[in-house]
Amino acid sequence: MTAETSGTTSTVKQNRGGLEGVVAATTALSKVEGTAGRLIYRGYNIHDLARTTSFEEIAYLLWYGKLPTKMELVDLKVQMLEERTLPMAVLQVLKDLPPTAAPMDVLRTAVSALGAATIQGKPTLDQAIALTERFPLILAAFHRMRNGLEPLEPHPEIGYAANYLYLLSGQMPKEEHVRALNAYLVLLADHGMNASTFTARIIASTESDIASAVVGAIGALKGPLHGGAPSKVQDMLEAIGTEDRAENWLRDALARGDRLMGFGHRIYNRVEELALALLEEQKPGRRLYTNVEFYSAVVLASVGLPRDLFTPTFAASRVAGWTAHILEQVTNNRLIRPEAEYTGATEQQFVSLGERQ
Amino acid sequence: MTAETSGTTSTVKQNRGGLEGVVAATTALSKVEGTAGRLIYRGYNIHDLARTTSFEEIAYLLWYGKLPTKMELVDLKVQMLEERTLPMAVLQVLKDLPPTAAPMDVLRTAVSALGAATIQGKPTLDQAIALTERFPLILAAFHRMRNGLEPLEPHPEIGYAANYLYLLSGQMPKEEHVRALNAYLVLLADHGMNASTFTARIIASTESDIASAVVGAIGALKGPLHGGAPSKVQDMLEAIGTEDRAENWLRDALARGDRLMGFGHRIYNRVEELALALLEEQKPGRRLYTNVEFYSAVVLASVGLPRDLFTPTFAASRVAGWTAHILEQVTNNRLIRPEAEYTGATEQQFVSLGERQ
Repeated sequence: MTAETSGTTSTVKQNRGGLEGVVAATTALSKVEGTAGRLIYRGYNIHDLARTTSFEEIAYLLWYGKLPTKMELVDLKVQMLEERTLPMAVLQVLKDLPPTAAPMDVLRTAVSALGAATIQGKPTLDQAIALTERFPLILAAFHRMRNGLEPLEPHPEIGYAANYLYLLSGQMPKEEHVRALNAYLVLLADHGMNASTFTARIIASTESDIASAVVGAIGALKGPLHGGAPSKVQDMLEAIGTEDRAENWLRDALARGDRLMGFGHRIYNRVEELALALLEEQKPGRRLYTNVEFYSAVVLASVGLPRDLFTPTFAASRVAGWTAHILEQVTNNRLIRPEAEYTGATEQQFVSLGERQ
Repeated sequence: MTAETSGTTSTVKQNRGGLEGVVAATTALSKVEGTAGRLIYRGYNIHDLARTTSFEEIAYLLWYGKLPTKMELVDLKVQMLEERTLPMAVLQVLKDLPPTAAPMDVLRTAVSALGAATIQGKPTLDQAIALTERFPLILAAFHRMRNGLEPLEPHPEIGYAANYLYLLSGQMPKEEHVRALNAYLVLLADHGMNASTFTARIIASTESDIASAVVGAIGALKGPLHGGAPSKVQDMLEAIGTEDRAENWLRDALARGDRLMGFGHRIYNRVEELALALLEEQKPGRRLYTNVEFYSAVVLASVGLPRDLFTPTFAASRVAGWTAHILEQVTNNRLIRPEAEYTGATEQQFVSLGERQ
């Protein structure tokens, strides 16, 4: 074994990584209170917001720091409607990608192309609005193309959630589907310093552009340890199949030592009774609550979304939070650049290729 | 002023950000010794490496942990040659982007499309090799297209640096140009836990794919506080024009309070005499040395690269380090997820839109 490979081995053992408990930034945007089961957006409990506010109001709250008046909301909606179109270059890029491509990869590529074609200079609120409005357009256009259908013209008179459902199906969506999807979009719009938001802030801290920061965040959200979880919840629900099979299925899974997807993220204190009772029975005192991904999967399936659009739809909500964080970061920026501890080989004697074994 | 906006203000003041001095990860890849003016790759001083090794040897060193034998280097070069082609989808995406697009935005989009079309699953060394080999192909293809020329077929028999120059011009490059560019690529290939590398590791830590992580890193490198600096050095050199104007130009710039680009990064102890003497005269004791970006700009201009390809060419070197860091991260992964300190409003009373002013 050479000095280098032993160096590598020792790294692996010592890798502390994680930055748990390290405060990487201050933010006025949102606060996660795990044990209390609360999520706060700029002082408002999301339980109050989810029932009666639209996604557009929440985006306004995150971007501007306050809930909009009726007139301010109208102004925002007008501005968003003006952005409700995809540049030809982006549509063309969507056509070039294989129909089998993963929708998160497609979203990442299309947002990058959108940035290349339309965005320059330092991040602005107008850019944040323009980027956010395009997420549902990109996803719906690709989804129709991969099914051999032409993308639809966006609807000029309905809200963000309704337009997304309309663009996917070509039908005016049911009122209860719009309400359910809207509540989902409100609940997922921000969540403190998660990995994708942190990624966006680091990229923004180099004084790069807003599209670069959002594209990086999409790549981070794709990871199964972050936004990738919802699909696994749906896998589990489909594997269980019917209600009467649930208890046996869950008992078997726990007996095999499997993790139950959608639990263990201590955010909401509403609980999914059966699974939680079993978890308490078998892992007493671990305080494993149902997390947002569990409900997300149920909601998104109920409004008719295909499973591989769950995480991209998460992105179509979180882009409001990402862009708000990017704007917060650049307001009084400082390059985010931690240290690394070097655990590799030291003082190797160089031997030229000709003499090397 | 509402409670929310005062919350925002206090954030800005208290923003510590930066993570300076915080160890975010361990790495066996490289070590920056600022005051000693040394950069180490896996135990080797880059001064020894830059004179006689090829970029391919350095990529091998970073990826495998040791310098290759002659046979191992041949095997790597064969594998890289097999990847020396762009999928049709990527070429098509390059054609769709406006010829005026920033090359870093184009690179970000094309690598994302490459990932969407060809990469699945967890990061592998084969994927690292395939991604790295395509960087010069993407840049040269776009550069020719924006000048109304067809992209060239990659050369099947020359090295990474030579092939890049060949693909840009269509001419076999001069030996001294290949040597200069190769030395540049060797010197820039890794640099500890910089912002783009940290971005790549965070994205990889969510168990996302290697293309997502590299795409995020490209976005971070684009920022003027990170890889954007070289072009500003070239701006300065072009503004100075001729040698005899240098002293007056530099004195005037310092008198205006301008920063001299390419200085202040304490890595290399070779110094650029005139500027350094002036800096010492006017800012005594500040220990401002010439940094790698200063030499980079001089080298890249001398081999005939247009200025807006400087930072993308930096990426064509650093991709070896990024991918090595991604593979190191996923070897014994832990999600990188710091905390944020919430400084926003607390306990706002929700008022529904209908009743809101």
